[in-house]
Amino acid sequence: MPTVVSLTTDFGTADWFVGAMKAVIAGIAPDAHLIDITHGIAPGDIRTGALALRAAVPWFPPGSIHVAVVDPGVGSERRAIAIRTPHACFIGPDNGLLTWAATDIEEIRVLANTSLFLQPVSHTFHGRDIFAPVAAHLAAGHPFSDLGPAIESHEILPWPTPVIAASIIHGEVVHVDHFGNAITNIPAEHLPGDTCARVTCGPFAAPLRASYAAVAPGEPVAVRGSTGLLELAVRDGSAATVFGIARGAAVEVAL
Amino acid sequence: MPTVVSLTTDFGTADWFVGAMKAVIAGIAPDAHLIDITHGIAPGDIRTGALALRAAVPWFPPGSIHVAVVDPGVGSERRAIAIRTPHACFIGPDNGLLTWAATDIEEIRVLANTSLFLQPVSHTFHGRDIFAPVAAHLAAGHPFSDLGPAIESHEILPWPTPVIAASIIHGEVVHVDHFGNAITNIPAEHLPGDTCARVTCGPFAAPLRASYAAVAPGEPVAVRGSTGLLELAVRDGSAATVFGIARGAAVEVAL
Amino acid sequence: MPTVVSLTTDFGTADWFVGAMKAVIAGIAPDAHLIDITHGIAPGDIRTGALALRAAVPWFPPGSIHVAVVDPGVGSERRAIAIRTPHACFIGPDNGLLTWAATDIEEIRVLANTSLFLQPVSHTFHGRDIFAPVAAHLAAGHPFSDLGPAIESHEILPWPTPVIAASIIHGEVVHVDHFGNAITNIPAEHLPGDTCARVTCGPFAAPLRASYAAVAPGEPVAVRGSTGLLELAVRDGSAATVFGIARGAAVEVAL
Repeated sequence: MPTVVSLTTDFGTADWFVGAMKAVIAGIAPDAHLIDITHGIAPGDIRTGALALRAAVPWFPPGSIHVAVVDPGVGSERRAIAIRTPHACFIGPDNGLLTWAATDIEEIRVLANTSLFLQPVSHTFHGRDIFAPVAAHLAAGHPFSDLGPAIESHEILPWPTPVIAASIIHGEVVHVDHFGNAITNIPAEHLPGDTCARVTCGPFAAPLRASYAAVAPGEPVAVRGSTGLLELAVRDGSAATVFGIARGAAVEVAL
Repeated sequence: MPTVVSLTTDFGTADWFVGAMKAVIAGIAPDAHLIDITHGIAPGDIRTGALALRAAVPWFPPGSIHVAVVDPGVGSERRAIAIRTPHACFIGPDNGLLTWAATDIEEIRVLANTSLFLQPVSHTFHGRDIFAPVAAHLAAGHPFSDLGPAIESHEILPWPTPVIAASIIHGEVVHVDHFGNAITNIPAEHLPGDTCARVTCGPFAAPLRASYAAVAPGEPVAVRGSTGLLELAVRDGSAATVFGIARGAAVEVAL
Repeated sequence: MPTVVSLTTDFGTADWFVGAMKAVIAGIAPDAHLIDITHGIAPGDIRTGALALRAAVPWFPPGSIHVAVVDPGVGSERRAIAIRTPHACFIGPDNGLLTWAATDIEEIRVLANTSLFLQPVSHTFHGRDIFAPVAAHLAAGHPFSDLGPAIESHEILPWPTPVIAASIIHGEVVHVDHFGNAITNIPAEHLPGDTCARVTCGPFAAPLRASYAAVAPGEPVAVRGSTGLLELAVRDGSAATVFGIARGAAVEVAL
């Protein structure tokens, strides 16, 4: 069974950057199965990169290797790291990008074994020269313990925890997706089982329903989204466009 | 020989949705060969999704499995179906999306075998929770007959048949592609073998020629397109931009 | 070890064109490992296609096959060719697209063995009907010498060589990437080892530094880029946007 290697970057797909990373991986681990999570993270947007990983990683087979490169600090002193969890390995810059997806951490190592890097290492494209080859060597069976020295901690990106009171939850929008749905930081398990809850976000106000299809076309609706988080939507439309919802907008759930 | 599984969605590539679908497939059918047809269908645009499938599917090897998700009715009562033809299987919502590609149908089944779904099934992302795993189980050898009960009919999206008279064909634009070429509903086999035909569409007027290169740069031209349909083009330019051609525009071929 | 087949086109990803090419390849060479370099080349932009190939190809494993289709002359008399080098094969139109990547050429052949094409060949989509199947047959082991007659020369796209004087280098911007970095035609090996050099491009003026991170956020900087060429950047920003830099802009390096 081929090892799955996922890729998540802010490189876009107009240039050759992702292709170069995949070429490096194919040379080292020819049987690896490459899966793009996304290359559409806005340049330097570590938070959205972290969220994409958090949302996608649980669906990968055990033993997958996740390479993530949203790396505005490339060439600086920021460390390159690898994280091992019971289900996966993560490779990327130590800037918080990996923290929301890499849970139950068993081991963190600094990427210091330069024999696994391409040489010479450029100062501007560690995706190609460090992260891709290290991930490929792991996929080809190289031991995790040989990547570099173990470290005790890494850069943490704090998850914006919602405030849950007796009759109200205060949260925020953490992502607006391709459809204009607004994904919040409010976990579905904190939402009431019945459907009395009312969700507001600026001019957006809607009941909590089981699916988009529970309201008429064009109507606003709140749902338990597929990432396990409350989502604000407009059926057959864009909540972001209709209600001007953007990341960071305050959301309230009246229980 | 690995089974090919194609994916066609309106999910875009900025989020993690396609990656999550592929992760699910890789977990169930590790040897499947995944090929993206497109994820750039406009949200909810079933017609363009159906056209993309119609245009791409004939070029796939026999036995390919085509997963298509343009599914504005997700979470509603619309059925999820699988269609078997002599050359391929199709998996998707029963909303007409599959009808232009799935010809010579041998068998249609409702996806009702929930043991093949991810559990729990979300109400908003059947691509990940139903369509991807069912396609993967098929790719891994699970029998088609076990997907759910057979049904006699499914939702049909009517093809906009052109009107063919003695000296004129009345058709319409069914798609404007990335190059600004306007693809029509007029089959190439209804066009005359010689090159006397004149094609008009609003301000666009051009002769029927063998290729774009038969006219000077910047000049309009009509060709038998690579999908077997009449196309309106501008050499080294965009017919859509130059002549303001959009989907649905009326096209006339004077024979 | 599966043969890697790379794809570089101006087809975009909104339509089914790339999917159709991959389907054809999968039918002929089921074990080929397909890697997209990019499909985001602007329509007909041969120069950027050639640059993407030049930048990506060196990172592929030996024996890779590179299919490139930026082909405004499709259907005209322009030839379709294959080029063999010590490390790779290239398949594409004879319009200069392959010349910056295909160095140390050992053999050039015109694609004339029509038994390797799909039949009938369309006049508008040789990517699907000629280039993809020929590449796939090569990947499946078909001999290069059987593709068609050898030729002595092919269409050359001249590289815009910079002018190097005693105390100044005159070059130009050859590409603006997804991040707004401006890649120039000035090879890194012509730049001084120290950091006294000053780089200007219209209103852009910056020192040559080792990495983006060597300057403060928002500040301009020039670096030896990952393609071996001088790049103009703004840390955590877009040089293209901030300074209005576009392809073709004159660049000066004062040594």
